[in-house]
Amino acid sequence: MTKAARLRELLSSDCLIRVAGAHNGLSAKLVEAAQFEAIWASGLEISAAHGLPDTSIVTMTEFLNSAAQMDFVTTIPIIADCNTGYGDEHNVAHLVRHYERMRIAAICIEDKVFPKINSFMEGSQILESIEKFANKIRAAKSAQESSDFVVIARTEAFIAGLVLEAALTRAQAYAEAGADLVLVHSKARTAEEIAQFMECWTCSVPIAVVPTTYGSATTQELRDLGVKVVIYANQGMRAAIMAMQAAFSHIIQSGHTSGIEDMMVSVQEIFTLQGIER
Amino acid sequence: MTKAARLRELLSSDCLIRVAGAHNGLSAKLVEAAQFEAIWASGLEISAAHGLPDTSIVTMTEFLNSAAQMDFVTTIPIIADCNTGYGDEHNVAHLVRHYERMRIAAICIEDKVFPKINSFMEGSQILESIEKFANKIRAAKSAQESSDFVVIARTEAFIAGLVLEAALTRAQAYAEAGADLVLVHSKARTAEEIAQFMECWTCSVPIAVVPTTYGSATTQELRDLGVKVVIYANQGMRAAIMAMQAAFSHIIQSGHTSGIEDMMVSVQEIFTLQGIER
Amino acid sequence: MTKAARLRELLSSDCLIRVAGAHNGLSAKLVEAAQFEAIWASGLEISAAHGLPDTSIVTMTEFLNSAAQMDFVTTIPIIADCNTGYGDEHNVAHLVRHYERMRIAAICIEDKVFPKINSFMEGSQILESIEKFANKIRAAKSAQESSDFVVIARTEAFIAGLVLEAALTRAQAYAEAGADLVLVHSKARTAEEIAQFMECWTCSVPIAVVPTTYGSATTQELRDLGVKVVIYANQGMRAAIMAMQAAFSHIIQSGHTSGIEDMMVSVQEIFTLQGIER
Amino acid sequence: MTKAARLRELLSSDCLIRVAGAHNGLSAKLVEAAQFEAIWASGLEISAAHGLPDTSIVTMTEFLNSAAQMDFVTTIPIIADCNTGYGDEHNVAHLVRHYERMRIAAICIEDKVFPKINSFMEGSQILESIEKFANKIRAAKSAQESSDFVVIARTEAFIAGLVLEAALTRAQAYAEAGADLVLVHSKARTAEEIAQFMECWTCSVPIAVVPTTYGSATTQELRDLGVKVVIYANQGMRAAIMAMQAAFSHIIQSGHTSGIEDMMVSVQEIFTLQGIER
Repeated sequence: MTKAARLRELLSSDCLIRVAGAHNGLSAKLVEAAQFEAIWASGLEISAAHGLPDTSIVTMTEFLNSAAQMDFVTTIPIIADCNTGYGDEHNVAHLVRHYERMRIAAICIEDKVFPKINSFMEGSQILESIEKFANKIRAAKSAQESSDFVVIARTEAFIAGLVLEAALTRAQAYAEAGADLVLVHSKARTAEEIAQFMECWTCSVPIAVVPTTYGSATTQELRDLGVKVVIYANQGMRAAIMAMQAAFSHIIQSGHTSGIEDMMVSVQEIFTLQGIER
Repeated sequence: MTKAARLRELLSSDCLIRVAGAHNGLSAKLVEAAQFEAIWASGLEISAAHGLPDTSIVTMTEFLNSAAQMDFVTTIPIIADCNTGYGDEHNVAHLVRHYERMRIAAICIEDKVFPKINSFMEGSQILESIEKFANKIRAAKSAQESSDFVVIARTEAFIAGLVLEAALTRAQAYAEAGADLVLVHSKARTAEEIAQFMECWTCSVPIAVVPTTYGSATTQELRDLGVKVVIYANQGMRAAIMAMQAAFSHIIQSGHTSGIEDMMVSVQEIFTLQGIER
Repeated sequence: MTKAARLRELLSSDCLIRVAGAHNGLSAKLVEAAQFEAIWASGLEISAAHGLPDTSIVTMTEFLNSAAQMDFVTTIPIIADCNTGYGDEHNVAHLVRHYERMRIAAICIEDKVFPKINSFMEGSQILESIEKFANKIRAAKSAQESSDFVVIARTEAFIAGLVLEAALTRAQAYAEAGADLVLVHSKARTAEEIAQFMECWTCSVPIAVVPTTYGSATTQELRDLGVKVVIYANQGMRAAIMAMQAAFSHIIQSGHTSGIEDMMVSVQEIFTLQGIER
Repeated sequence: MTKAARLRELLSSDCLIRVAGAHNGLSAKLVEAAQFEAIWASGLEISAAHGLPDTSIVTMTEFLNSAAQMDFVTTIPIIADCNTGYGDEHNVAHLVRHYERMRIAAICIEDKVFPKINSFMEGSQILESIEKFANKIRAAKSAQESSDFVVIARTEAFIAGLVLEAALTRAQAYAEAGADLVLVHSKARTAEEIAQFMECWTCSVPIAVVPTTYGSATTQELRDLGVKVVIYANQGMRAAIMAMQAAFSHIIQSGHTSGIEDMMVSVQEIFTLQGIER
């Protein structure tokens, strides 16, 4: 069974799909080991891993290589965050061909104008017109080879400050254009905005959310709202950064590593994670 | 001033040079922020980051890209761990040309036979003959363009179970072949093995060590032994893994992220680390 | 002397600079062997070499790798065709940092809107506004590290069907924004369009041209018009394609290679071109 | 149908399979257009295309990217020349996983010691022991995912100056280790050496040959000997080099391109080869 087929199976099931963000093969393996159902090849994490801003500077090639690296060493589906699709509908068709070949199960594109900035950044969050973005979704669906491959449309309507009705209109249009899943992004401090959206969402296309700012909403609560996919998009990297900062700072200040042994896995555990030894 | 020139300056100074391991642009930035003097583009970390074993499977291209990514986003010198040099002396000359172009300040090759396994793994640790390895060092020195570029010879004599005299013979031979620095690797639980080596080392070429297993030895103690460079090769990644495991496990078990907010940096802090916002 | 410094020297000299297009290390070596003064890392050739259309689908990473590959194996300057700059002025600044690190001597960006299509294709050739494009030039000039690095502004005014005055206005604006060279593209069947431009061009910034459609105009004639740089952008690849077609077709039809021995170099000559044998 | 399945179908048929060498997407497209049955992702051509010697310096990553690029833009099977397998049997297993993912139909490894030199170069051609190489073949066969994927064992027995019996012993051992095809390389000026081999070859595993030095032997003659696959490994590139040399030299000498118009395809033909226009 391909990973795309596995993702389709999960989407048809009754289960909520829990997804966590990763930025390389290692973090993807940790997502799988923790028993998430799928891996989010996060645009924010991958650009941050490169040490670069999440502002359309990292190229499709670099994002694709990171996602492919994750897929190579895991057995659960990879959902690739493809930002705005790196250009227009032709670029979207091209990326679908590349990602599907690399055995990525799903790609997600968002309705902002290229080049875009991260959704949580201060600054202008300019949306693509509905028609142009629906064209991108149609281009993605036409380009896929296997019917199992999943195309996710992400609307940044709430991020751009639009009202509920606008978010619904966009989500509806993308579903009609063929999106297999709609991701409704929100930077509210609670799940209220999402709850309102779910109450009005009558379409059969399932909904994904990213509870970065409303992390106190539980998976169960989101499921009760009717959400199908919950993406914990960046928590792994945020924990990793704090831990690396602490370890480095301890070494510089104390001059030894004795005091940090209990906050580090052993070298042997790295070997185990790396897999097959000769 | 190039980074290689900066590294030369540090080597000529009285200071101990503290180096920490990294595997991508982000971890390299954290090493710099913690005020280490240089960054170790670690073979173990980079292969683990790919999710692959540290057994000569990751290619020179992949290691080089990782090191170049680190250099692109930092201002301190990168020292690249190049394993055995990916083949014979011709491969070593080729890698020097590539790494130097990418502004890497130093490369380090070790006297094991290709394909090798990690020094801390169980299994055979077969050493290259002294003459063959000295040829690789000579090939590296001949291939470099600027006289500032630094070539480090790493002897695995202690790792392979050889006695002190054998380690000294090898280190001496590599120094004579032109190595700018000799890295003496040890997997002893204390710094005693290194102390004995330093006591007998009379050559002017400085010595680097990697206190992974003897992490209770302080930087000051190592300096007092005459060591010039101390490489904390993998602590950052080991802390990152434990933190990611904890974060992912908490989310799966609790269904929310409230309980891990204090073990994660904010999304804003990621933006700050990523640098220039639009 | 860096290659950028060498290109500056050529630009300050009395000589016309002859440049030929290449798409990989091998074709770049052939350009150098033929005694051109510089190599054009052609967008058309590189995308065609990938087997892909010249329509903003090949990524910056892929173009950069191709240009870097050329630079690695040659001793003359590389001028990289960077299309529209792969996005906005931030993408341009980012690409300058990457290309300059890779020792590329010059980059060239054109005043079309991203994503663009090849200048000789039927279809819409939409120009960027002068102000936006001048901003890209300023971003490029601010991002460069060494003052020797050369930034080329290419105006597609004639390609888009604009009149002479519009071409002059654009070229003037780009020169004022800091461009070190202005490339005036034309798809006319004679050099007349270029001749008219040169007659009116009074600015000290030198002019480059690409005589693809007006190939009967000689280097000497173009020089007499005041042109400084002549780029033969795609002739090498066009000859290579015809030769490969002939060789393959002969083998399929005749079932042997005897009849094509005189249209092929020997395997030994490939070895010589590849350089250092073990 | 996958490309590997298509190659299996060709191998089970009565037809001779004609294969031509390529080094990038474009040359692969020309091979397909000329109606060869498959494409040889040639080690010599790919290293030459990089401008680098065919001496184990180009990495697996670089070879893989070139082969994947060919596959992306063609519809016939790619057979990838993987030199000695880039290390030992673990490297071989790793490369099979990578190449099969990239939809490459077959890989070919040869029984020389890593790092190797090209078969037509003067200098030492050292063979791997039969047992070690058979282990590589077994590792390749165990690593493949689909039963359609094809593993080719190439013996350099004749290249190393061994006699017929030694070549037969090696070919037989590799067939027993699981090779789906055995490539018998020869640098004789006639097909006599191959004819002698075929006369003694009684095993059911089919044989491939590379008539570089004995190019006057026709496809029909080779087929009559019982050969199943004929690989024209480098003729396309050799023709391309001569054509580029002629074009560049003409431009430098004449100062115009009028005289070479009839040895070049048009720019429009490049567009057609590149495929989908916007």
